[in-house]
Amino acid sequence: MSRFEIEHATDEEIAQEAALYAPFTEAVRALVDATIRTEVDADEIRSAQAEVEAIVERLRKQQMEGAYGVRFRADGKRGRNWGNAVMGLRNPIAPPLDVRSDGQGKAWSDFHLGAAYEGPPGLVHGGVVSLMLDQVLGHAVSTSGRPGMTGTLTIVYRQGTPLGDLRCEAWVDRREGIKTWGKGRILTTDGEVTAEAEGVFILPKWARDLDRFRAAAEATESAFELE
Amino acid sequence: MSRFEIEHATDEEIAQEAALYAPFTEAVRALVDATIRTEVDADEIRSAQAEVEAIVERLRKQQMEGAYGVRFRADGKRGRNWGNAVMGLRNPIAPPLDVRSDGQGKAWSDFHLGAAYEGPPGLVHGGVVSLMLDQVLGHAVSTSGRPGMTGTLTIVYRQGTPLGDLRCEAWVDRREGIKTWGKGRILTTDGEVTAEAEGVFILPKWARDLDRFRAAAEATESAFELE
Repeated sequence: MSRFEIEHATDEEIAQEAALYAPFTEAVRALVDATIRTEVDADEIRSAQAEVEAIVERLRKQQMEGAYGVRFRADGKRGRNWGNAVMGLRNPIAPPLDVRSDGQGKAWSDFHLGAAYEGPPGLVHGGVVSLMLDQVLGHAVSTSGRPGMTGTLTIVYRQGTPLGDLRCEAWVDRREGIKTWGKGRILTTDGEVTAEAEGVFILPKWARDLDRFRAAAEATESAFELE
Repeated sequence: MSRFEIEHATDEEIAQEAALYAPFTEAVRALVDATIRTEVDADEIRSAQAEVEAIVERLRKQQMEGAYGVRFRADGKRGRNWGNAVMGLRNPIAPPLDVRSDGQGKAWSDFHLGAAYEGPPGLVHGGVVSLMLDQVLGHAVSTSGRPGMTGTLTIVYRQGTPLGDLRCEAWVDRREGIKTWGKGRILTTDGEVTAEAEGVFILPKWARDLDRFRAAAEATESAFELE
Protein backbone atom coordinates (compact mmCIF):
# COMPACT_ATOMS: atom_id res chain seq x y z
CA MET A 1 0.00 0.00 0.00
CA SER A 2 3.07 2.24 -0.09
CA ARG A 3 2.37 5.16 -2.41
CA PHE A 4 5.28 7.49 -2.92
CA GLU A 5 4.15 9.29 -6.01
CA ILE A 6 5.33 12.21 -8.04
CA GLU A 7 2.74 14.97 -8.42
CA HIS A 8 1.54 15.32 -12.00
CA ALA A 9 -1.23 17.89 -11.45
CA THR A 10 -0.66 21.60 -12.07
CA ASP A 11 -1.32 24.17 -9.32
CA GLU A 12 -4.59 25.07 -11.05
CA GLU A 13 -5.74 21.45 -11.20
CA ILE A 14 -4.88 20.99 -7.53
CA ALA A 15 -6.92 24.09 -6.63
CA GLN A 16 -9.88 22.73 -8.62
CA GLU A 17 -9.64 19.35 -6.89
CA ALA A 18 -9.44 21.06 -3.48
CA ALA A 19 -12.59 23.07 -4.28
CA LEU A 20 -14.40 19.82 -5.09
CA TYR A 21 -13.15 17.57 -2.28
CA ALA A 22 -12.91 19.98 0.68
CA PRO A 23 -16.68 20.64 0.99
CA PHE A 24 -17.51 16.96 0.35
CA THR A 25 -15.12 15.84 3.10
CA GLU A 26 -16.53 18.53 5.39
CA ALA A 27 -20.03 17.06 4.84
CA VAL A 28 -18.75 13.61 5.85
CA ARG A 29 -17.11 15.15 8.96
CA ALA A 30 -20.51 16.56 9.93
CA LEU A 31 -21.99 13.08 9.38
CA VAL A 32 -19.36 11.56 11.70
CA ASP A 33 -20.40 14.06 14.41
CA ALA A 34 -24.13 13.47 13.83
CA THR A 35 -23.64 9.68 13.91
CA ILE A 36 -22.33 9.94 17.47
CA ARG A 37 -24.86 12.50 18.72
CA THR A 38 -28.15 11.76 16.97
CA GLU A 39 -31.22 10.78 18.99
CA VAL A 40 -33.67 10.26 16.13
CA ASP A 41 -35.73 7.07 16.19
CA ALA A 42 -34.64 3.61 15.05
CA ASP A 43 -36.42 3.75 11.67
CA GLU A 44 -34.64 6.98 10.80
CA ILE A 45 -31.26 5.43 11.72
CA ARG A 46 -32.00 2.39 9.55
CA SER A 47 -32.97 4.49 6.55
CA ALA A 48 -29.88 6.71 6.99
CA GLN A 49 -27.76 3.54 7.08
CA ALA A 50 -29.27 2.25 3.81
CA GLU A 51 -28.64 5.61 2.12
CA VAL A 52 -25.04 5.79 3.36
CA GLU A 53 -24.40 2.26 2.10
CA ALA A 54 -25.77 3.22 -1.33
CA ILE A 55 -23.49 6.29 -1.48
CA VAL A 56 -20.47 4.14 -0.53
CA GLU A 57 -21.28 1.66 -3.28
CA ARG A 58 -21.37 4.45 -5.88
CA LEU A 59 -18.13 6.03 -4.61
CA ARG A 60 -16.36 2.68 -4.68
CA LYS A 61 -17.18 2.04 -8.37
CA GLN A 62 -13.91 3.77 -9.16
CA GLN A 63 -11.39 4.06 -6.37
CA MET A 64 -7.64 3.96 -5.80
CA GLU A 65 -5.91 0.82 -4.62
CA GLY A 66 -5.05 1.12 -0.91
CA ALA A 67 -4.44 4.40 0.89
CA TYR A 68 -4.03 7.90 -0.58
CA GLY A 69 -0.28 8.14 -0.06
CA VAL A 70 1.63 11.37 -0.59
CA ARG A 71 2.20 13.03 -3.95
CA PHE A 72 5.62 14.61 -3.89
CA ARG A 73 6.46 17.58 -6.04
CA ALA A 74 9.40 17.76 -8.34
CA ASP A 75 9.72 21.50 -7.64
CA GLY A 76 10.45 20.89 -3.95
CA LYS A 77 7.18 22.45 -2.70
CA ARG A 78 5.33 20.59 0.05
CA GLY A 79 3.74 17.33 -1.14
CA ARG A 80 0.04 16.67 -1.24
CA ASN A 81 -0.93 14.62 1.84
CA TRP A 82 -4.69 14.74 1.42
CA GLY A 83 -5.15 11.33 3.06
CA ASN A 84 -3.24 12.26 6.23
CA ALA A 85 -5.05 11.33 9.47
CA VAL A 86 -4.49 14.80 10.97
CA MET A 87 -4.08 17.25 8.06
CA GLY A 88 -5.74 15.44 5.16
CA LEU A 89 -8.08 17.61 3.08
CA ARG A 90 -9.81 14.40 1.90
CA ASN A 91 -9.73 12.58 5.26
CA PRO A 92 -12.93 13.00 7.34
CA ILE A 93 -11.04 11.76 10.43
CA ALA A 94 -8.67 14.75 10.24
CA PRO A 95 -10.06 17.85 12.06
CA PRO A 96 -8.21 18.87 9.69
CA LEU A 97 -5.25 20.78 11.10
CA ASP A 98 -4.05 23.76 9.11
CA VAL A 99 -0.46 23.88 10.35
CA ARG A 100 1.48 27.13 9.80
CA SER A 101 5.21 27.53 10.15
CA ASP A 102 7.80 30.28 9.98
CA GLY A 103 10.23 27.96 8.14
CA GLN A 104 12.74 28.58 10.94
CA GLY A 105 11.61 25.73 13.20
CA LYS A 106 8.37 27.10 14.65
CA ALA A 107 4.95 25.67 13.79
CA TRP A 108 1.45 26.25 15.15
CA SER A 109 -2.18 25.44 14.50
CA ASP A 110 -5.54 26.63 15.79
CA PHE A 111 -8.26 24.00 15.50
CA HIS A 112 -11.51 22.68 16.90
CA LEU A 113 -12.07 19.19 18.32
CA GLY A 114 -15.69 18.06 18.68
CA ALA A 115 -17.51 14.95 19.90
CA ALA A 116 -15.52 12.58 17.66
CA TYR A 117 -12.30 13.18 19.62
CA GLU A 118 -13.63 12.42 23.11
CA GLY A 119 -11.93 10.23 25.71
CA PRO A 120 -13.00 11.00 29.29
CA PRO A 121 -16.41 12.76 29.44
CA GLY A 122 -16.14 16.23 27.85
CA LEU A 123 -12.38 15.91 27.38
CA VAL A 124 -10.14 15.21 24.40
CA HIS A 125 -8.86 11.61 24.31
CA GLY A 126 -5.30 11.57 25.71
CA GLY A 127 -4.11 9.73 22.59
CA VAL A 128 -5.69 12.38 20.35
CA VAL A 129 -3.69 15.01 22.29
CA SER A 130 -0.52 13.07 21.38
CA LEU A 131 -1.71 12.68 17.77
CA MET A 132 -2.02 16.47 17.35
CA LEU A 133 1.33 17.11 19.08
CA ASP A 134 3.09 14.50 16.92
CA GLN A 135 1.87 16.21 13.75
CA VAL A 136 2.76 19.78 14.75
CA LEU A 137 6.18 18.82 16.21
CA GLY A 138 6.95 16.87 13.04
CA HIS A 139 5.88 19.88 10.99
CA ALA A 140 8.15 22.24 12.96
CA VAL A 141 11.08 19.88 12.42
CA SER A 142 10.49 19.13 8.74
CA THR A 143 9.88 22.77 7.75
CA SER A 144 13.07 23.81 9.55
CA GLY A 145 14.99 22.35 6.63
CA ARG A 146 15.64 18.85 7.89
CA PRO A 147 12.97 16.20 7.38
CA GLY A 148 12.55 13.81 10.29
CA MET A 149 10.69 10.63 11.20
CA THR A 150 9.47 10.51 14.81
CA GLY A 151 11.97 8.46 16.86
CA THR A 152 10.66 9.07 20.36
CA LEU A 153 7.71 11.11 21.57
CA THR A 154 6.99 11.91 25.22
CA ILE A 155 3.75 13.58 26.28
CA VAL A 156 3.25 15.06 29.75
CA TYR A 157 -0.42 15.56 30.57
CA ARG A 158 -0.83 18.58 32.89
CA GLN A 159 -4.63 18.52 33.04
CA GLY A 160 -7.60 17.37 30.99
CA THR A 161 -7.89 19.05 27.57
CA PRO A 162 -11.47 20.29 27.08
CA LEU A 163 -13.21 19.57 23.75
CA GLY A 164 -13.60 22.76 21.72
CA ASP A 165 -11.19 25.37 20.34
CA LEU A 166 -7.52 24.61 20.94
CA ARG A 167 -4.06 25.68 19.87
CA CYS A 168 -0.96 23.56 19.35
CA GLU A 169 2.51 25.11 19.18
CA ALA A 170 5.85 23.43 18.47
CA TRP A 171 9.44 24.44 17.91
CA VAL A 172 12.86 22.96 17.20
CA ASP A 173 14.79 22.79 20.45
CA ARG A 174 18.20 21.55 19.27
CA ARG A 175 20.06 19.38 16.76
CA GLU A 176 22.80 16.81 17.06
CA GLY A 177 23.97 14.77 14.04
CA ILE A 178 20.97 13.05 12.46
CA LYS A 179 18.73 13.88 15.45
CA THR A 180 16.51 16.91 15.94
CA TRP A 181 14.69 17.61 19.22
CA GLY A 182 11.29 19.23 18.97
CA LYS A 183 9.13 20.56 21.78
CA GLY A 184 5.50 21.57 21.86
CA ARG A 185 2.33 22.10 23.83
CA ILE A 186 -1.45 22.23 23.62
CA LEU A 187 -3.28 25.28 24.97
CA THR A 188 -6.89 26.23 25.61
CA THR A 189 -8.22 29.55 24.29
CA ASP A 190 -7.57 30.91 27.81
CA GLY A 191 -3.88 30.18 27.30
CA GLU A 192 -3.79 27.30 29.79
CA VAL A 193 -1.29 24.59 28.87
CA THR A 194 -2.97 21.17 29.11
CA ALA A 195 -0.17 18.99 27.71
CA GLU A 196 3.49 19.29 26.76
CA ALA A 197 5.57 17.19 24.39
CA GLU A 198 9.16 16.45 23.50
CA GLY A 199 10.13 14.42 20.48
CA VAL A 200 13.30 13.18 18.87
CA PHE A 201 13.14 13.16 15.08
CA ILE A 202 15.57 11.13 13.01
CA LEU A 203 16.77 12.24 9.58
CA PRO A 204 15.62 9.46 7.19
CA LYS A 205 18.21 7.40 5.33
CA TRP A 206 17.20 8.78 1.91
CA ALA A 207 17.84 12.33 3.19
CA ARG A 208 21.21 11.28 4.61
CA ASP A 209 22.09 9.78 1.22
CA LEU A 210 20.95 13.06 -0.33
CA ASP A 211 23.22 14.95 2.11
CA ARG A 212 26.14 12.73 1.16
CA PHE A 213 25.30 13.13 -2.52
CA ARG A 214 25.20 16.93 -2.13
CA ALA A 215 28.47 16.93 -0.18
CA ALA A 216 30.07 14.74 -2.86
CA ALA A 217 28.68 16.98 -5.61
CA GLU A 218 29.99 20.09 -3.85
CA ALA A 219 33.38 18.46 -3.31
CA THR A 220 33.48 17.52 -7.00
CA GLU A 221 32.52 21.07 -8.02
CA SER A 222 35.20 22.58 -5.80
CA ALA A 223 37.66 20.13 -7.31
CA PHE A 224 36.70 21.31 -10.77
CA GLU A 225 36.92 24.95 -9.67
CA LEU A 226 40.42 24.31 -8.40
CA GLU A 227 41.53 22.86 -11.72
CA MET B 1 -19.82 19.44 27.57
CA SER B 2 -18.86 17.25 30.51
CA ARG B 3 -21.23 14.29 30.64
CA PHE B 4 -20.70 12.01 33.59
CA GLU B 5 -23.98 10.14 33.58
CA ILE B 6 -25.45 7.21 35.39
CA GLU B 7 -26.64 4.42 33.09
CA HIS B 8 -30.41 4.04 33.12
CA ALA B 9 -30.77 1.43 30.35
CA THR B 10 -31.11 -2.28 31.13
CA ASP B 11 -28.69 -4.84 29.61
CA GLU B 12 -31.38 -5.82 27.12
CA GLU B 13 -31.96 -2.21 26.05
CA ILE B 14 -28.22 -1.69 25.64
CA ALA B 15 -28.00 -4.81 23.45
CA GLN B 16 -30.88 -3.51 21.29
CA GLU B 17 -29.19 -0.12 20.92
CA ALA B 18 -25.89 -1.79 20.01
CA ALA B 19 -27.65 -3.86 17.31
CA LEU B 20 -29.05 -0.62 15.84
CA TYR B 21 -26.01 1.67 16.07
CA ALA B 22 -23.11 -0.72 15.35
CA PRO B 23 -24.04 -1.43 11.69
CA PHE B 24 -24.97 2.23 11.09
CA THR B 25 -21.60 3.42 12.42
CA GLU B 26 -19.88 0.73 10.35
CA ALA B 27 -21.58 2.14 7.22
CA VAL B 28 -20.24 5.62 8.07
CA ARG B 29 -16.74 4.14 8.60
CA ALA B 30 -16.93 2.70 5.08
CA LEU B 31 -17.98 6.15 3.83
CA VAL B 32 -14.94 7.72 5.54
CA ASP B 33 -12.70 5.24 3.68
CA ALA B 34 -14.49 5.76 0.36
CA THR B 35 -14.30 9.57 0.76
CA ILE B 36 -10.50 9.36 0.80
CA ARG B 37 -10.13 6.77 -1.97
CA THR B 38 -12.86 7.46 -4.49
CA GLU B 39 -11.97 8.40 -8.07
CA VAL B 40 -15.50 8.86 -9.44
CA ASP B 41 -16.18 12.03 -11.44
CA ALA B 42 -16.93 15.49 -10.07
CA ASP B 43 -20.71 15.30 -10.61
CA GLU B 44 -20.91 12.08 -8.63
CA ILE B 45 -18.93 13.69 -5.77
CA ARG B 46 -21.26 16.70 -5.77
CA SER B 47 -24.39 14.55 -5.68
CA ALA B 48 -22.92 12.38 -2.89
CA GLN B 49 -22.17 15.59 -0.95
CA ALA B 50 -25.78 16.83 -1.30
CA GLU B 51 -27.12 13.46 -0.12
CA VAL B 52 -24.76 13.33 2.87
CA GLU B 53 -25.80 16.88 3.84
CA ALA B 54 -29.47 15.86 3.70
CA ILE B 55 -28.84 12.82 5.94
CA VAL B 56 -26.96 15.01 8.44
CA GLU B 57 -29.86 17.45 8.56
CA ARG B 58 -32.30 14.65 9.37
CA LEU B 59 -30.03 13.11 12.02
CA ARG B 60 -29.52 16.50 13.69
CA LYS B 61 -33.29 17.08 14.13
CA GLN B 62 -32.96 15.40 17.50
CA GLN B 63 -29.47 15.17 18.96
CA MET B 64 -27.70 15.32 22.31
CA GLU B 65 -26.06 18.50 23.53
CA GLY B 66 -22.28 18.25 23.13
CA ALA B 67 -20.33 14.99 23.12
CA TYR B 68 -21.55 11.49 24.01
CA GLY B 69 -19.82 11.30 27.40
CA VAL B 70 -19.64 8.09 29.41
CA ARG B 71 -22.60 6.40 31.08
CA PHE B 72 -21.40 4.88 34.32
CA ARG B 73 -23.12 1.90 35.85
CA ALA B 74 -24.32 1.75 39.41
CA ASP B 75 -23.47 -2.00 39.52
CA GLY B 76 -19.76 -1.32 38.96
CA LYS B 77 -19.65 -2.94 35.49
CA ARG B 78 -17.70 -1.09 32.81
CA GLY B 79 -19.41 2.12 31.67
CA ARG B 80 -20.70 2.74 28.18
CA ASN B 81 -18.14 4.81 26.22
CA TRP B 82 -19.76 4.63 22.81
CA GLY B 83 -18.44 8.07 21.83
CA ASN B 84 -14.79 7.19 22.58
CA ALA B 85 -12.33 8.13 19.80
CA VAL B 86 -10.68 4.68 19.86
CA MET B 87 -13.26 2.22 21.21
CA GLY B 88 -16.60 3.95 20.62
CA LEU B 89 -19.28 1.73 19.07
CA ARG B 90 -21.01 4.90 17.81
CA ASN B 91 -17.83 6.76 16.77
CA PRO B 92 -16.92 6.34 13.06
CA ILE B 93 -13.39 7.64 13.82
CA ALA B 94 -12.76 4.68 16.14
CA PRO B 95 -11.46 1.57 14.25
CA PRO B 96 -13.07 0.54 16.80
CA LEU B 97 -10.72 -1.29 19.14
CA ASP B 98 -12.18 -4.28 20.97
CA VAL B 99 -9.80 -4.35 23.94
CA ARG B 100 -9.64 -7.56 25.99
CA SER B 101 -8.07 -7.89 29.41
CA ASP B 102 -7.35 -10.62 31.93
CA GLY B 103 -8.32 -8.31 34.81
CA GLN B 104 -4.84 -8.84 36.24
CA GLY B 105 -3.13 -5.99 34.42
CA LYS B 106 -2.80 -7.40 30.88
CA ALA B 107 -4.77 -6.03 27.94
CA TRP B 108 -4.62 -6.62 24.19
CA SER B 109 -6.44 -5.88 20.98
CA ASP B 110 -6.33 -7.11 17.38
CA PHE B 111 -7.52 -4.52 14.89
CA HIS B 112 -7.29 -3.23 11.34
CA LEU B 113 -6.18 0.26 10.30
CA GLY B 114 -7.07 1.35 6.77
CA ALA B 115 -6.55 4.44 4.61
CA ALA B 116 -8.04 6.81 7.21
CA TYR B 117 -5.12 6.28 9.61
CA GLU B 118 -2.28 7.05 7.18
CA GLY B 119 0.70 9.30 7.92
CA PRO B 120 3.74 8.54 5.74
CA PRO B 121 2.78 6.75 2.49
CA GLY B 122 1.41 3.27 3.30
CA LEU B 123 2.22 3.64 7.00
CA VAL B 124 0.13 4.33 10.08
CA HIS B 125 0.43 7.96 11.29
CA GLY B 126 2.91 8.06 14.20
CA GLY B 127 0.33 9.87 16.31
CA VAL B 128 -2.26 7.17 15.59
CA VAL B 129 0.25 4.61 16.87
CA SER B 130 0.43 6.57 20.14
CA LEU B 131 -3.38 6.91 20.20
CA MET B 132 -3.83 3.12 20.10
CA LEU B 133 -1.09 2.54 22.69
CA ASP B 134 -2.57 5.16 25.05
CA GLN B 135 -5.95 3.40 24.96
CA VAL B 136 -4.65 -0.15 25.49
CA LEU B 137 -2.17 0.88 28.22
CA GLY B 138 -4.93 2.80 29.99
CA HIS B 139 -7.18 -0.24 29.68
CA ALA B 140 -4.55 -2.55 31.20
CA VAL B 141 -4.11 -0.15 34.12
CA SER B 142 -7.80 0.55 34.77
CA THR B 143 -8.88 -3.10 34.56
CA SER B 144 -6.11 -4.09 36.97
CA GLY B 145 -8.25 -2.64 39.75
CA ARG B 146 -6.88 0.90 39.92
CA PRO B 147 -8.31 3.52 37.54
CA GLY B 148 -5.72 5.92 36.16
CA MET B 149 -5.52 9.07 34.07
CA THR B 150 -2.52 9.22 31.73
CA GLY B 151 0.21 11.33 33.38
CA THR B 152 3.11 10.73 30.99
CA LEU B 153 3.30 8.65 27.83
CA THR B 154 6.51 7.88 25.94
CA ILE B 155 6.48 6.18 22.56
CA VAL B 156 9.59 4.74 20.96
CA TYR B 157 9.17 4.17 17.22
CA ARG B 158 11.27 1.19 16.10
CA GLN B 159 10.14 1.18 12.46
CA GLY B 160 7.21 2.27 10.34
CA THR B 161 3.91 0.55 11.20
CA PRO B 162 2.28 -0.74 8.00
CA LEU B 163 -1.42 -0.07 7.44
CA GLY B 164 -3.42 -3.29 7.80
CA ASP B 165 -3.92 -5.87 10.53
CA LEU B 166 -2.14 -5.06 13.79
CA ARG B 167 -1.99 -6.10 17.42
CA CYS B 168 -1.49 -3.94 20.50
CA GLU B 169 -0.49 -5.44 23.85
CA ALA B 170 -0.08 -3.72 27.23
CA TRP B 171 0.59 -4.68 30.81
CA VAL B 172 1.03 -3.16 34.25
CA ASP B 173 4.73 -2.94 35.01
CA ARG B 174 4.72 -1.64 38.60
CA ARG B 175 2.94 0.51 41.18
CA GLU B 176 4.10 3.13 43.65
CA GLY B 177 1.58 5.14 45.69
CA ILE B 178 -0.91 6.81 43.38
CA LYS B 179 1.20 5.98 40.28
CA THR B 180 0.96 2.92 38.07
CA TRP B 181 3.47 2.23 35.27
CA GLY B 182 2.14 0.55 32.16
CA LYS B 183 4.09 -0.78 29.19
CA GLY B 184 2.98 -1.83 25.76
CA ARG B 185 3.80 -2.39 22.11
CA ILE B 186 2.37 -2.59 18.61
CA LEU B 187 3.09 -5.63 16.47
CA THR B 188 2.50 -6.62 12.87
CA THR B 189 0.85 -9.98 12.09
CA ASP B 190 4.41 -11.32 11.56
CA GLY B 191 5.15 -10.52 15.21
CA GLU B 192 7.49 -7.61 14.41
CA VAL B 193 7.42 -4.88 17.05
CA THR B 194 7.04 -1.49 15.36
CA ALA B 195 6.61 0.73 18.45
CA GLU B 196 6.91 0.48 22.22
CA ALA B 197 5.33 2.58 24.94
CA GLU B 198 5.67 3.35 28.62
CA GLY B 199 3.10 5.36 30.51
CA VAL B 200 2.62 6.64 34.04
CA PHE B 201 -1.02 6.62 35.11
CA ILE B 202 -2.19 8.67 38.08
CA LEU B 203 -5.01 7.55 40.38
CA PRO B 204 -7.67 10.29 40.04
CA LYS B 205 -8.60 12.38 43.09
CA TRP B 206 -12.13 10.94 43.29
CA ALA B 207 -10.69 7.42 43.53
CA ARG B 208 -8.24 8.57 46.23
CA ASP B 209 -11.17 10.08 48.15
CA LEU B 210 -12.98 6.77 47.69
CA ASP B 211 -9.93 4.95 49.06
CA ARG B 212 -9.84 7.27 52.09
CA PHE B 213 -13.59 6.86 52.56
CA ARG B 214 -13.25 3.06 52.47
CA ALA B 215 -10.33 3.17 54.90
CA ALA B 216 -12.31 5.45 57.22
CA ALA B 217 -15.36 3.18 56.95
CA GLU B 218 -13.24 0.12 57.71
CA ALA B 219 -11.63 1.88 60.68
CA THR B 220 -15.07 2.85 61.96
CA GLU B 221 -16.30 -0.73 61.54
CA SER B 222 -13.30 -2.13 63.40
CA ALA B 223 -13.92 0.44 66.14
CA PHE B 224 -17.50 -0.79 66.47
CA GLU B 225 -16.30 -4.41 66.44
CA LEU B 226 -13.90 -3.59 69.29
CA GLU B 227 -16.61 -2.07 71.42
